[in-house]
Amino acid sequence: MEKKEVEEQEQEQVVNPWQVSAKDGGKIDYDKLIDQFGCQRLDQSLIDRVHRLTSRPPHVFLRRGVFFAHRDFNEILDAYERGEKFYLYTGRGPSSESLHLGHLIPFMFTKYLQDAFKVPLVIQLTDDEKCMWKNLSVEESQRLARENAKDIIACGFDVSRTFIFCDFDYVGGAFYKNMVKVAKCVTYNKAVGIFGFTGEDHIGKISFPPVQAVPSFPSSFPHLFSGKDSLRCLIPCAIDQDPYFRMTRDVAPRLGYNKPALIESSFFPALQGETGKMSASDPNSAIYVTDSAKDIKNKINRYAFSGGQDSIEKHRQYGANLEVDIPVKYLGFFLEDDAELEHIRNEYGAGGMLTGEVKQRLIQVLSELVERHRTARAAVTDEMVDAFMAVRPLPNMFN
Amino acid sequence: MEKKEVEEQEQEQVVNPWQVSAKDGGKIDYDKLIDQFGCQRLDQSLIDRVHRLTSRPPHVFLRRGVFFAHRDFNEILDAYERGEKFYLYTGRGPSSESLHLGHLIPFMFTKYLQDAFKVPLVIQLTDDEKCMWKNLSVEESQRLARENAKDIIACGFDVSRTFIFCDFDYVGGAFYKNMVKVAKCVTYNKAVGIFGFTGEDHIGKISFPPVQAVPSFPSSFPHLFSGKDSLRCLIPCAIDQDPYFRMTRDVAPRLGYNKPALIESSFFPALQGETGKMSASDPNSAIYVTDSAKDIKNKINRYAFSGGQDSIEKHRQYGANLEVDIPVKYLGFFLEDDAELEHIRNEYGAGGMLTGEVKQRLIQVLSELVERHRTARAAVTDEMVDAFMAVRPLPNMFN
Repeated sequence: MEKKEVEEQEQEQVVNPWQVSAKDGGKIDYDKLIDQFGCQRLDQSLIDRVHRLTSRPPHVFLRRGVFFAHRDFNEILDAYERGEKFYLYTGRGPSSESLHLGHLIPFMFTKYLQDAFKVPLVIQLTDDEKCMWKNLSVEESQRLARENAKDIIACGFDVSRTFIFCDFDYVGGAFYKNMVKVAKCVTYNKAVGIFGFTGEDHIGKISFPPVQAVPSFPSSFPHLFSGKDSLRCLIPCAIDQDPYFRMTRDVAPRLGYNKPALIESSFFPALQGETGKMSASDPNSAIYVTDSAKDIKNKINRYAFSGGQDSIEKHRQYGANLEVDIPVKYLGFFLEDDAELEHIRNEYGAGGMLTGEVKQRLIQVLSELVERHRTARAAVTDEMVDAFMAVRPLPNMFN
Repeated sequence: MEKKEVEEQEQEQVVNPWQVSAKDGGKIDYDKLIDQFGCQRLDQSLIDRVHRLTSRPPHVFLRRGVFFAHRDFNEILDAYERGEKFYLYTGRGPSSESLHLGHLIPFMFTKYLQDAFKVPLVIQLTDDEKCMWKNLSVEESQRLARENAKDIIACGFDVSRTFIFCDFDYVGGAFYKNMVKVAKCVTYNKAVGIFGFTGEDHIGKISFPPVQAVPSFPSSFPHLFSGKDSLRCLIPCAIDQDPYFRMTRDVAPRLGYNKPALIESSFFPALQGETGKMSASDPNSAIYVTDSAKDIKNKINRYAFSGGQDSIEKHRQYGANLEVDIPVKYLGFFLEDDAELEHIRNEYGAGGMLTGEVKQRLIQVLSELVERHRTARAAVTDEMVDAFMAVRPLPNMFN
């Protein structure tokens, strides 16, 4: 009986910043995750409200439920409606040279939010985290952070509203003071409960959560938000980052700070199927922004898990299983035309369209996306990186 | 049997940065501490060597065994003899407004070392530590650090060779990179073994040891020691700080850094007797640098534990017990004249001198010391504090 309980426990889904694994190797149960984490579902009325307040169509990622959960996003909109602005905070742990499509999602969405709400944005590159978790040298972590910054800038952020920083360069001063204030409020036992640390983890890992927490507080950026301590913060991120911000929200009132609000995405599935996030260690599990058109075509044709039937005859008869079909899921992220997507889903689901045809359309969509990104990234100079990273006031913060 | 073992364990002496308690409430056994910690006894041959190398009489604190233990101090002297310099690192946790005599000891000794060896010195004020341990606000910790800096400067340090910094101001950049490098090398279990943390301690405490560790590495101070990565570091401190530097020395080779050397003092006894360090919570247990001549006279006459006999007759017959007598111990720290001290010990120990006479001499010595300090401190301006704390090259580092 005891053993059985342990087994059941081991099979539960685990989602934290370092591990995403579904129950019994199946799909992540996002409804259950919302309950587990205690966040809220992002429902249609909120999406309609975003539409109304920004006077532009909500982003595909909102319309199609990629960003599906939130914490206090409604309060951000309440404040915005009253004429109060907020700021955006997102980030990335720079652990690999080139990003894959899953990495782009929070940045594409954040770019949309910045444009729609006309608000400032801080982007944290946690080179310190990756130095500690991936055992990279300080120098290599810093190099990767700068490389990743170029990909992020290529997403089209407005330099007059955006501050990008690397922890190794920026930790200190007001930021460090806030780190200490946060750290004082979190016991080791509490950190173990949230993050699952063990006694064999090094103390660098245990020291890190406050580093990711404090960009949620405007006072961490005196050059941006001096005198604006009550400015609210909205964090777009994948839901695996929720533990950091549960901790942050727990601590914030004790420091006299506002809790950051969150808007959280599901995971972009691997080419092989939807059982978690894409894996950096298997290059064939993901489309990278550095992949050539030929790579993309090859990967999708060879590896993208199909919900189509085994034979054309059966496919015509039963249609594709859209619940497991990766090409249709990917189109759901990146094909902007709602009518065309609906058409493909109907035809493919009914067997009128074959897997090869859907893959063909996906190859086209992704090749264009990656080519656009490549062109944009090639135009990002070192001077531009320096400009985004300069510790400076943002001239165009709230217009 | 098990219970007995636990009791025995509980009665062992405990010495770490936050607790100093002797076995069974008795005296600290310093010989045993040297064994426990694995440091070395500072013997006469080393003291003679200091005399020879510096061409000046060794400090009273060396001659009389106040600084009694070391780690690799001989290697510092080897290098010095070969013409290689080193740098000094000491510090203080700024938890109280005014310092007592015990607080002055490492600084008086460090001042002597700086003058004798003509070497640069960094002084760390761990306002972050005290903010976390004493639950002070950031601002109050910073204020205390600046107040304490004035007392430290009043000890006579050479501004052309001394850099004083507060963690809240200075953590960042190369210093933070070294913090991360150190933290990566220490597991939580290891930290528990060294510092005795529990699961109920907050993660700020667990994050702190690297902050105190990294001033041991020249690369933490690029404005001072750029290109001097192999410069050795010597740390004068009370032996309760040894755990920090055991950890630091354990980690250093894995980072390609030199291990810091240490020269370690015993604890300055409380007026009430030699059972540990003085207590900041009982103002009558210590002489403060802010005490008036009247305070000093009153405290010594009322509270200084005497080894004299109950009656004059018995005293004349048996003499004082110098092993427990606080006035004689204090004179051992602060009466510079060896011959006079010897005379007092002999006379008092033989019953020829009375407690009142010894106390009278001590009151005189301490009143002069405190008055000298008060005058020196009154002359320390805010501009001088700024000058010591300026992040700058030291113009007179090695001459």
